[in-house]
Amino acid sequence: MTPEEFRRIGHQVVDWIADYRAQVGERPVMSPVEPGSIRARLPVSPPAQSESFDAVFQDLERLILPGLSHWQHPSFFGYFPSNCGLASVLGDYLSTGLGVLGLAWQSSPALTELEEVVTEWMRQMVGLSEAWSGVIQDTASTSTLVALVCARERTSGYSLGRGGLQGEERPLVVYASAQAHSSVEKAALLAGFGRSNFRKIETDGSYAMRPDALAAAVEADIGRGLAPCAVVATTGTTTTTAVDPLEAIAEVSRRHGLWLHVDAAMAGSAMILPECRPLWQGIEGADSIVLNAHKWLGAAFDCSLYYVRDPEHLVRVMSTNPSYLQSAVDSRVKNLRDWGIPLGRRFRALKLWCLIREQGIAGLQARLRRDIANARWLEARVRSTPGWRVLAPVPLQTVCVRHEPAGLEAEALDRHTQAWADRVNHSGAAYLTPAVLDGRWMVRVSIGSIATEREHVDALWKRMRQQAERA
Amino acid sequence: MTPEEFRRIGHQVVDWIADYRAQVGERPVMSPVEPGSIRARLPVSPPAQSESFDAVFQDLERLILPGLSHWQHPSFFGYFPSNCGLASVLGDYLSTGLGVLGLAWQSSPALTELEEVVTEWMRQMVGLSEAWSGVIQDTASTSTLVALVCARERTSGYSLGRGGLQGEERPLVVYASAQAHSSVEKAALLAGFGRSNFRKIETDGSYAMRPDALAAAVEADIGRGLAPCAVVATTGTTTTTAVDPLEAIAEVSRRHGLWLHVDAAMAGSAMILPECRPLWQGIEGADSIVLNAHKWLGAAFDCSLYYVRDPEHLVRVMSTNPSYLQSAVDSRVKNLRDWGIPLGRRFRALKLWCLIREQGIAGLQARLRRDIANARWLEARVRSTPGWRVLAPVPLQTVCVRHEPAGLEAEALDRHTQAWADRVNHSGAAYLTPAVLDGRWMVRVSIGSIATEREHVDALWKRMRQQAERA
Repeated sequence: MTPEEFRRIGHQVVDWIADYRAQVGERPVMSPVEPGSIRARLPVSPPAQSESFDAVFQDLERLILPGLSHWQHPSFFGYFPSNCGLASVLGDYLSTGLGVLGLAWQSSPALTELEEVVTEWMRQMVGLSEAWSGVIQDTASTSTLVALVCARERTSGYSLGRGGLQGEERPLVVYASAQAHSSVEKAALLAGFGRSNFRKIETDGSYAMRPDALAAAVEADIGRGLAPCAVVATTGTTTTTAVDPLEAIAEVSRRHGLWLHVDAAMAGSAMILPECRPLWQGIEGADSIVLNAHKWLGAAFDCSLYYVRDPEHLVRVMSTNPSYLQSAVDSRVKNLRDWGIPLGRRFRALKLWCLIREQGIAGLQARLRRDIANARWLEARVRSTPGWRVLAPVPLQTVCVRHEPAGLEAEALDRHTQAWADRVNHSGAAYLTPAVLDGRWMVRVSIGSIATEREHVDALWKRMRQQAERA
Repeated sequence: MTPEEFRRIGHQVVDWIADYRAQVGERPVMSPVEPGSIRARLPVSPPAQSESFDAVFQDLERLILPGLSHWQHPSFFGYFPSNCGLASVLGDYLSTGLGVLGLAWQSSPALTELEEVVTEWMRQMVGLSEAWSGVIQDTASTSTLVALVCARERTSGYSLGRGGLQGEERPLVVYASAQAHSSVEKAALLAGFGRSNFRKIETDGSYAMRPDALAAAVEADIGRGLAPCAVVATTGTTTTTAVDPLEAIAEVSRRHGLWLHVDAAMAGSAMILPECRPLWQGIEGADSIVLNAHKWLGAAFDCSLYYVRDPEHLVRVMSTNPSYLQSAVDSRVKNLRDWGIPLGRRFRALKLWCLIREQGIAGLQARLRRDIANARWLEARVRSTPGWRVLAPVPLQTVCVRHEPAGLEAEALDRHTQAWADRVNHSGAAYLTPAVLDGRWMVRVSIGSIATEREHVDALWKRMRQQAERA
């Protein structure tokens, strides 16, 4: 494809996306397709000869769009928002179009330096001290894996330079709340700790980690001859956006030399609001933090910000220095390949840079405050409606609810919950993802899609009542 | 930003990229900026209020472009090509604009199913049997880490469900050629094996792994009471594109129950040419393969294809199944979160789908054949020029050369090599990345940027002679 063909078709692509975004609210939020139905309609073999891009557009309309659940839809209330603000989209378009890679500083200096600048901007925006250095990773899953590997190496005195985990006498142990994201246990297993050295710490009535239970578990492990290594605290759990008490957890960590990693994947964005900062009181006692700018904040996926207090330790654990990547300036620059797992690196800073500049701090703050207000509004509606319950505190934008008709309990209640949520989803009018809390299914209403206004939350609430209270 | 603003500025972005691509050949290939100079010219704090996108365009021209080394430049001969074909760019534009995520099949069915289709297309294109299943990862570094974790879990009988590597009696050992990419050792260290359980196997005169040396190392480790676990063979090493003999290595692997992972990050793309397939004779004896469609083939970064023969094993190692990710169709679909480390997943299949359709197999094959012919042409020039040497076989598109003036040896020769390569790079006319081979610096000429024609290789050769032979 020549640059002139790219210009012509690129304009069509932009128009197509602009139309998509303008009209996405008219589509069913959740794709209704059956498993395998899209695959079955696509050619089993690649084309031998070049095809026109018109054929691609036809397949997009005919096959792909009906097969999507629309994350940018104003009535998307599933999972957590994965906002992809249009200014950020343009930043990503610039990145892909430039097609430069950051293997080393020298392989594209601006890529590295703009990443330093925007992670520094974000540090200021979320109120972290100057003690933190940031880098962009792909996801919180990967960031947490990096954190646990770094913890492993700190506790073991760089066992990777010797026999690895295989050479350690005392098994290392990792702790997280029972409400921690599944990626935390996955990271501990991938890093080689083993499930029997992973502790799920019980939570309190608001689903936050109990620091006394953490301290007790750590002390019990020490008593058994094990080596407590790391604790992962969560600011904003996936099920209920519960907030672990960082100050008390940091105190336990300090006392026992644990690495404290804070998973603020969702709620980290909220720290651009000064009024939310009390939620991570104690954050300066952590060793590493992850927050996903690709969630609520609005940067195009993937844009997970990973902050550490000791970048030299990170680099020592992650670094490689083969001759084909060396340059004369290595001692004077950051080589971001040594800040994470992949060697290759897109120019991801552009999408965050464009988002922040186009919105300004004020614009981002206003949107997040709108969403929090919408969640409070919904919480009040649910609380004041007979038969409905709010199941967990609402510190941010997620409201956990259940409709509990008289006489329905246990499995029957579960069936009811899943059935009405399913009816809402299959109506196409909104998308909800249920979850299990205290052993029972409930429905998370996760508010915060960029396009979601009060009217959409109001319509959702009416739809929920209609589907749950019928019959 | 509203869809209408996006439409207007999006057209500007497309035009800006079209102009950039059309004129990239007129820019200095390697950025001449000093460390810190870009950062120093950017605001230290984020803007409080919204800025216009015009300011972004101004900064792009004034600050960012001069700070880039241009990977899409026709005279980019550094590292390996990271081609970002314009049809693939448009596929990525569609992905970012749609802003959908593949956490689970249900969270956007078409995302998963198109990924199944294009990895299947690629399987056919590179001549792998139907025994392989594919998925898109970000990079080869990550794919190799996944492979080594899977190897660890196969050999240890799923130690992650118990005490992890910490509970194993016999340390597990990983093998790779001394010419393997730095990411292989990094992956072994991250996965917890430890450096003392990582063996670098010596290579033969063509820099390929010696299967007899591998067998001897494995047997020696067994004799010591260790547990040989995995071998990573490379099809196309980074320094010289050497090709490890897969058939013989597979035989050693079979005999000792080793996991065989093949790093075909660079050379895997060449397997779309039937005449190159002898290079990975024996590939069907492997357990996992990575090939980077974002290198020579031309898919926008990141697009690393990871193939396995036993997807159930992969899923068993990687899977998590929290309630908030469950859906009614889970038993009937692929949930690609269980095929790798990150939970979140972009719609990456679009960029590969658009590339293959716009080029057709024939178009991709023609370009790769052009590059191989250009490498052969350069090889012949170097071989026939007094004072110049070709240092390694040229199976693909990389020519390793040294200018060896009479009387220059050892460190003096190293200084000469680095000096002339540096002069070429600082001239702005071409970009080369030297590397160490057999303890001495040499220059890799890595041909294969989409825009690179014979005339650019010819001009490079003249420039190399001019800079090396002067004085």
